Amino acid sequence: MKNEVFASQTCSVARALELIGEWWTLLIVREAFFGTRRFNEFEKNLAIAKNVLSERLYKLVEAGIMERTPVAGRGNPQDYTLTAKGRDLLPIVIALQQWGDRWIYGHDKAPVRVLDQEKGEEIARLEVLSAKGKPLSSGHIVIIPGPGANDAIRRKFDRG
Amino acid sequence: MKNEVFASQTCSVARALELIGEWWTLLIVREAFFGTRRFNEFEKNLAIAKNVLSERLYKLVEAGIMERTPVAGRGNPQDYTLTAKGRDLLPIVIALQQWGDRWIYGHDKAPVRVLDQEKGEEIARLEVLSAKGKPLSSGHIVIIPGPGANDAIRRKFDRG
Repeated sequence: MKNEVFASQTCSVARALELIGEWWTLLIVREAFFGTRRFNEFEKNLAIAKNVLSERLYKLVEAGIMERTPVAGRGNPQDYTLTAKGRDLLPIVIALQQWGDRWIYGHDKAPVRVLDQEKGEEIARLEVLSAKGKPLSSGHIVIIPGPGANDAIRRKFDRG
Repeated sequence: MKNEVFASQTCSVARALELIGEWWTLLIVREAFFGTRRFNEFEKNLAIAKNVLSERLYKLVEAGIMERTPVAGRGNPQDYTLTAKGRDLLPIVIALQQWGDRWIYGHDKAPVRVLDQEKGEEIARLEVLSAKGKPLSSGHIVIIPGPGANDAIRRKFDRG
């Protein structure tokens, strides 16, 4: 039912949440960014129940966010890796992590640090930027109906 | 129960999801970025049940993400607005929106456009950047234990 409610909203945020907003889903994706590939590693690192992990991985593969690849070894092991669509979730995962570091743990108590591999320096804070690269706060952006707006969206903006 | 599982993970992504990952919560925040302030406007724009909206707004105020302010008018109306902690969710909302635009609707069918108010141009795509501003893909970042790492995190990275 929840999914139906969300699917009925013409909104990229709602539709993105519909795919990745389920409990555990983004943590599996985060774990994949950390380099985890095997079912039993996901299970161990996330302390997640086998049936839940199995169902979430299945949905991630169905949604084209992860792919399953057979690898050599006993018992037909398979790797789960991110597709291009999955790797493109990086800004979402990093944005959540930086917000949690800042507002929940405090930057000085951050559980992990994310570094630029080449330089060994911490990555920059994600910021919403103008086309020319100027940082924009919520007071400096404006939202307008897009090419895929439906009548409900147009009415909403007409109001204002 | 879900929340307990998430709270037990020392991870900013998990803790951020614990606060904002519930169905509707981020859509309420998105709606607040759109300029919505009144209970009945949230209700109408989100087509959300009164009791669910009421509970989510309560939790958002409890978490320090939104604040309630009495305003002049009949029936003691109140405004719900984002605090600094709430406004700092902007990169998360924009990251979700851009991912949905790209991978669900397609950029040419995006329901809304986000513009730089001053220039009227579309904002830039959110990217993970190095300290010097170089775009970094997931293959160019490395994750290490932070100052708040616990034993479980340290063991995980020792493994590698």
